[in-house]
Amino acid sequence: MKRFLLLNGPNLNMLGKREPKIYGTNRLVDIENMISHLGKVNGVEVICKQSNHEGELIDFLHGAYDFDGIIFNPGAFTHYSYAIRDAIAGIQAPVIEVHISNIHAREDFRHVSVTAPETKGQIIGLGIKGYELAFYTLLDDKGEK
Amino acid sequence: MKRFLLLNGPNLNMLGKREPKIYGTNRLVDIENMISHLGKVNGVEVICKQSNHEGELIDFLHGAYDFDGIIFNPGAFTHYSYAIRDAIAGIQAPVIEVHISNIHAREDFRHVSVTAPETKGQIIGLGIKGYELAFYTLLDDKGEK
Amino acid sequence: MKRFLLLNGPNLNMLGKREPKIYGTNRLVDIENMISHLGKVNGVEVICKQSNHEGELIDFLHGAYDFDGIIFNPGAFTHYSYAIRDAIAGIQAPVIEVHISNIHAREDFRHVSVTAPETKGQIIGLGIKGYELAFYTLLDDKGEK
Amino acid sequence: MKRFLLLNGPNLNMLGKREPKIYGTNRLVDIENMISHLGKVNGVEVICKQSNHEGELIDFLHGAYDFDGIIFNPGAFTHYSYAIRDAIAGIQAPVIEVHISNIHAREDFRHVSVTAPETKGQIIGLGIKGYELAFYTLLDDKGEK
Amino acid sequence: MKRFLLLNGPNLNMLGKREPKIYGTNRLVDIENMISHLGKVNGVEVICKQSNHEGELIDFLHGAYDFDGIIFNPGAFTHYSYAIRDAIAGIQAPVIEVHISNIHAREDFRHVSVTAPETKGQIIGLGIKGYELAFYTLLDDKGEK
Amino acid sequence: MKRFLLLNGPNLNMLGKREPKIYGTNRLVDIENMISHLGKVNGVEVICKQSNHEGELIDFLHGAYDFDGIIFNPGAFTHYSYAIRDAIAGIQAPVIEVHISNIHAREDFRHVSVTAPETKGQIIGLGIKGYELAFYTLLDDKGEK
Amino acid sequence: MKRFLLLNGPNLNMLGKREPKIYGTNRLVDIENMISHLGKVNGVEVICKQSNHEGELIDFLHGAYDFDGIIFNPGAFTHYSYAIRDAIAGIQAPVIEVHISNIHAREDFRHVSVTAPETKGQIIGLGIKGYELAFYTLLDDKGEK
Amino acid sequence: MKRFLLLNGPNLNMLGKREPKIYGTNRLVDIENMISHLGKVNGVEVICKQSNHEGELIDFLHGAYDFDGIIFNPGAFTHYSYAIRDAIAGIQAPVIEVHISNIHAREDFRHVSVTAPETKGQIIGLGIKGYELAFYTLLDDKGEK
Amino acid sequence: MKRFLLLNGPNLNMLGKREPKIYGTNRLVDIENMISHLGKVNGVEVICKQSNHEGELIDFLHGAYDFDGIIFNPGAFTHYSYAIRDAIAGIQAPVIEVHISNIHAREDFRHVSVTAPETKGQIIGLGIKGYELAFYTLLDDKGEK
Amino acid sequence: MKRFLLLNGPNLNMLGKREPKIYGTNRLVDIENMISHLGKVNGVEVICKQSNHEGELIDFLHGAYDFDGIIFNPGAFTHYSYAIRDAIAGIQAPVIEVHISNIHAREDFRHVSVTAPETKGQIIGLGIKGYELAFYTLLDDKGEK
Amino acid sequence: MKRFLLLNGPNLNMLGKREPKIYGTNRLVDIENMISHLGKVNGVEVICKQSNHEGELIDFLHGAYDFDGIIFNPGAFTHYSYAIRDAIAGIQAPVIEVHISNIHAREDFRHVSVTAPETKGQIIGLGIKGYELAFYTLLDDKGEK
Amino acid sequence: MKRFLLLNGPNLNMLGKREPKIYGTNRLVDIENMISHLGKVNGVEVICKQSNHEGELIDFLHGAYDFDGIIFNPGAFTHYSYAIRDAIAGIQAPVIEVHISNIHAREDFRHVSVTAPETKGQIIGLGIKGYELAFYTLLDDKGEK
Repeated sequence: MKRFLLLNGPNLNMLGKREPKIYGTNRLVDIENMISHLGKVNGVEVICKQSNHEGELIDFLHGAYDFDGIIFNPGAFTHYSYAIRDAIAGIQAPVIEVHISNIHAREDFRHVSVTAPETKGQIIGLGIKGYELAFYTLLDDKGEK
Repeated sequence: MKRFLLLNGPNLNMLGKREPKIYGTNRLVDIENMISHLGKVNGVEVICKQSNHEGELIDFLHGAYDFDGIIFNPGAFTHYSYAIRDAIAGIQAPVIEVHISNIHAREDFRHVSVTAPETKGQIIGLGIKGYELAFYTLLDDKGEK
Repeated sequence: MKRFLLLNGPNLNMLGKREPKIYGTNRLVDIENMISHLGKVNGVEVICKQSNHEGELIDFLHGAYDFDGIIFNPGAFTHYSYAIRDAIAGIQAPVIEVHISNIHAREDFRHVSVTAPETKGQIIGLGIKGYELAFYTLLDDKGEK
Repeated sequence: MKRFLLLNGPNLNMLGKREPKIYGTNRLVDIENMISHLGKVNGVEVICKQSNHEGELIDFLHGAYDFDGIIFNPGAFTHYSYAIRDAIAGIQAPVIEVHISNIHAREDFRHVSVTAPETKGQIIGLGIKGYELAFYTLLDDKGEK
Repeated sequence: MKRFLLLNGPNLNMLGKREPKIYGTNRLVDIENMISHLGKVNGVEVICKQSNHEGELIDFLHGAYDFDGIIFNPGAFTHYSYAIRDAIAGIQAPVIEVHISNIHAREDFRHVSVTAPETKGQIIGLGIKGYELAFYTLLDDKGEK
Repeated sequence: MKRFLLLNGPNLNMLGKREPKIYGTNRLVDIENMISHLGKVNGVEVICKQSNHEGELIDFLHGAYDFDGIIFNPGAFTHYSYAIRDAIAGIQAPVIEVHISNIHAREDFRHVSVTAPETKGQIIGLGIKGYELAFYTLLDDKGEK
Repeated sequence: MKRFLLLNGPNLNMLGKREPKIYGTNRLVDIENMISHLGKVNGVEVICKQSNHEGELIDFLHGAYDFDGIIFNPGAFTHYSYAIRDAIAGIQAPVIEVHISNIHAREDFRHVSVTAPETKGQIIGLGIKGYELAFYTLLDDKGEK
Repeated sequence: MKRFLLLNGPNLNMLGKREPKIYGTNRLVDIENMISHLGKVNGVEVICKQSNHEGELIDFLHGAYDFDGIIFNPGAFTHYSYAIRDAIAGIQAPVIEVHISNIHAREDFRHVSVTAPETKGQIIGLGIKGYELAFYTLLDDKGEK
Repeated sequence: MKRFLLLNGPNLNMLGKREPKIYGTNRLVDIENMISHLGKVNGVEVICKQSNHEGELIDFLHGAYDFDGIIFNPGAFTHYSYAIRDAIAGIQAPVIEVHISNIHAREDFRHVSVTAPETKGQIIGLGIKGYELAFYTLLDDKGEK
Repeated sequence: MKRFLLLNGPNLNMLGKREPKIYGTNRLVDIENMISHLGKVNGVEVICKQSNHEGELIDFLHGAYDFDGIIFNPGAFTHYSYAIRDAIAGIQAPVIEVHISNIHAREDFRHVSVTAPETKGQIIGLGIKGYELAFYTLLDDKGEK
Repeated sequence: MKRFLLLNGPNLNMLGKREPKIYGTNRLVDIENMISHLGKVNGVEVICKQSNHEGELIDFLHGAYDFDGIIFNPGAFTHYSYAIRDAIAGIQAPVIEVHISNIHAREDFRHVSVTAPETKGQIIGLGIKGYELAFYTLLDDKGEK
Repeated sequence: MKRFLLLNGPNLNMLGKREPKIYGTNRLVDIENMISHLGKVNGVEVICKQSNHEGELIDFLHGAYDFDGIIFNPGAFTHYSYAIRDAIAGIQAPVIEVHISNIHAREDFRHVSVTAPETKGQIIGLGIKGYELAFYTLLDDKGEK
């Protein structure tokens, strides 16, 4: 049975509460339920984690070393966490980076992604649907990074 | 009936022939057939265009002013065509930018996307599947930019 | 009899339709009629051209090699077309660069004009009146670049 | 009854011990006592937290979502933690950023504050008195960010 | 009756004397007479001021708070005076920035205009005719900034 | 008896009139009265000055060479006046820099303060209360820079 | 029989007419005749093309996919056309970049060549002789890129 | 008896598993055993810690405030953690920074070390032997920072 | 009889009082007396001026339009006053720029001199003797800029 | 009889030995023999020099002050030796800069040539044939720089 | 028998005399004796060279083409000598770069090492002990670069 | 008896021959004779040296370790030789940097002086008189750096 990690970074526990004009009204639990449900339907074990702690996110990535895929929204760590970048580089599981809003249409610092070079790909600005698209991509994927 | 434009920019006519290690062995016609087929199944008229000419791409974007969606791989114009950026900004149709390879894992100049800020979102590095994901996103979309 | 070229660049065919808050509600044909009318009154042959194609704009500039003046809104090409810059540098006709909106009050990349150094001067932010002012300036001009 | 959070970031637990020429001889507990005392006198509940962990600071900020004010010395996170910046942006409580030393008179990297744009204001270089001034400002404040 | 301020910045009192190859042989008084004459013909009170003092230029701008228009050549202050920029932003009168020479064809620092974003528009490189064009623009203007 | 200088820079004479959304509706005279009143109550002679002239501000700083404190809002000079920076460095009186609005939440150039390194500290974004806080800080201060 | 493409970019149709101090008095047809003649003598089919259109230049490069060599003066596209760079990268034929004038002795932007990294080599500043040298180099070449 | 802290940062728990071409096949426990063994032989108490959490690394540094030496591989935090830099600056123990691979021969961002200025020195690119060299250096050291 | 202007910029009226470690203990009047005395001995009329006002310095430069030489210490205006630069460029008199301290051995911004390109030369870091050397240089000079 | 200098800079004595994948297997003596032979055939005296010493290269350039041509591969000095640049500028002989490999396809610092602006032209990336092409160019040259 | 080169760059002949606070009181001969002694004890022939001449250092590196190791302190050439970088890249012997002082704790330009990417590793800031550590590292080394 | 070193860097042996419009028609020997003559008259032993070799210049500086003064025109080494900068920093003799032409009025790279921070001062743009002024300054100097 395939195993996916759904991993969300800092401030995503505030979804639905924080700046809803940018991030929408869905809560994190809605996303986790949606992806877990997709998992059940498609025979994939989905483990859901969120943390505001950079170190915990790294621990979760290490823990999913040989998973079949990781759907990861690194939040603001996208823009400066070289430690998370290294963690992505160091595991076997393919990672798809997801951003709910179009980060390229916002402040300048949002344009930089230090994690993207080590991911398989990115889905940006498509709302929570981005998580769903990442799920289906990893499902079809032959597990190569 | 919905109408989508599938638009591919410079050098994408060379797909399958050009640097297959980066871009894969699929030809452009394969992608166009795939999306056209999805259109038939889902009741969407899909118009397919490719050009190496910046001006023609702008003309095609203008011609799809009020389409229900545009799937657009701007190729290298991504990195410097402010004219295409303006064309995207000036039409009503929502645009999803697609890149086959992970541009963030290649040369430095590939990191810059001048078109991204005016698109709805981007799907990057997921191979030709990116086109398919863009199709489904626009299908579900309520047509808002 | 004097000959002027009125030349408009990419996306200006969308005037009146595209982002009217920034560019106003006048259409391109209104501007062309206005300048043609001024031409008739003042004994100047006015040739009107628009293109979204960088190469065509260069061809039009070459074609007006020894005109008495060129009123040119290069649109977004202002910000990166060194080929158009060279075309302006290579002809005898004096060129006045016109921008409808105040490009300096918008995004950062709009501040750069690579064409301006080779033009006679620029009129920026004064709406479509800018075209009229350029007409009168060239009319009084002794044809020197 | 009003509630304030007094939040101190990395290395501020070393106050009095670390580089006293720059940061003075007061310990963190002295500052916490001072502000708590001001709280008692003025009828404000003051909660005091310190952490060297970025994630914990974010958790504390989330926990004070609807407090009447936050006095926050982010320490070195000031200069790179976009995750803390997002946390400040995502809560309702107004935040005043405090720095004990004049960061603008020290190394270059100290000049950059990535958190400042999302705070209500900053008090810099006035020693531990800066905390007191922040307290009084928030006390008079009508709670608007 | 409409009121315009014709305002000239540092070193423009030297016109006709200073670097005539760049700035021409007209003196400042010739420009002031020309615009004053246009004022008489068109029923506009024209007040003419020149100063080499940044502070005086700010005072003059404040003094023309609700004028119907300001024709302003800020000279070298264009390139660094954020105080003048703020003064332009803080008054109601629309300001048109005029430069006699094509500043974009000269030294690099001349390309930067810190005042332009707060003006209505700019006329650059058209010699003293630029002042005349600014006059007619403001005359037709409905007084909006 | 202690002596303080309350010094305000360019465009602050327009307070209440200029961009009230950013700077509030208080006039400069209100601030001067407030600080003068605090002076009377606390036995401090308060001298109030404002100027749009960089040179006058320098003269005022020199004139307060051995005052017990200076509350200084340098306005836009903050961002480029190295001459004022030198004046602050060259006198004995401690200077506290005050900004009414949060300059870090506005345009990019507002982030740079060339004067800050030579001041004792800065209070930013706390409205006119910032002046009051500066007053109390200098009152408690032992006069050291 | 070997096949070479002689390809000239924007404004090179103006050779002999445009800025002769920089580019000399030879016309494009002179260069084309010279290289065609060399072709005849050496048993090489030489196809000559010029265009001011970026897209056409890309089409020509694609059309010469498996030629034995391409002599290419990209004109101003040298400095920004990543689309042409990609076209060069995507074909099998070796490309030698030629510039008539010493671009390194002119404006700053001329120093950047975005196409050079994908070419076999460059010949710069040696006048129209550069085309001849490129011809002989490709003639001796074993066709490797 | 002397006390040393052997401190390893993010992803170093993956040694031997992660990118062995760059980091070798030794595991972290091998390094810890090697240094502990050197400690026993030389009469030094060696405490070994590893964490992926920036905050924990700071806590460990504080906990070793007056140790005789710290051997520290900050991993990717080297490149952006000003908080760790401050922690190093704030303790008495001398710190030697160790990197297994030659960070200067890899990506650009690896060239920057924000922690190095506060350390006693760095040993870079010498494999796990670097830890051993650091040990001997601190052993001979008179404990000065 | 030759005429020289000795011109000193902002904060130089504080000489002997301001940061004597950097600027020495001589007062401005000592310098003015020294140069005036040299003038008497050598038959040169020396006019001495100092101002903290940029505009006044420009006025003084204009007033010395055809003097035989100007000895000018622009103080901090050196680093940003393009208006003074233009004033120097616009007059006939040769200007020698003098700095008492070695500005290249101090803060980074001191390295930039925007006025230097328009002066005849600079004498830097030689204390008040620099004024004397400038005097003798201008005395021998044939008055060419 | 014409005289040419063939001058090779640092590390070119290692040709054939150093990184043969980049520089090929020819030795320096092969190049010197080739060019000397061409000299004999064409009646040109060819003097061959190589040095790893910047100063010696300058001496050689001075010594060839009025030669008919210089073929110069400055090696790594290309990227930083302003002294060599000055030497080239100061002599009468025309210099052609030759690089064996395509420096634009390698590390970033290789893109900068500080010597190129003062040379007649450059031949880059064409292997040792570049020396031969330079020879023929200088042979045809009328000796103008 | 193994052979090592101990190579010291510019100004290291002044050790003990030059800025002893930074570089200590040991003379170069002390270092050379120390390493030679280590050589004798460990059966390694140690050749000691120092030069202030970049070209000589390159010659020495070439001369040690197939040595078993090179201990190299390039002094200030570290920061700009691409010629030395190329020399290191072109030889077979592994090079360890040594700096006596912590260059990262000094001026900005000291942070850049252009030679480091081609060395095996660096030992920085550990005083003359750094030479000793380099010796032992090369001794254990299997001679691979 | 005092001892001065007159030291001239690369290409200054070409004075009078090289670009006389910039550097004048005097030869180096004229300058050396002039300063030697001044030495004789004023009882100073003057040693004259010139070299195009960076290393030799460093050797000469070391050789003048305790001279009473050094007059040094580093030529183009001014702009990049950190090794010469270190040599100046490491000796006791005060150094005055002299440039014949106004380097600030020429190419951009000429604006940077890496040697200036370690010199006593600089005399720039005053022709060969600059050497004379440096001589008199050192003569009066009390020998402090």
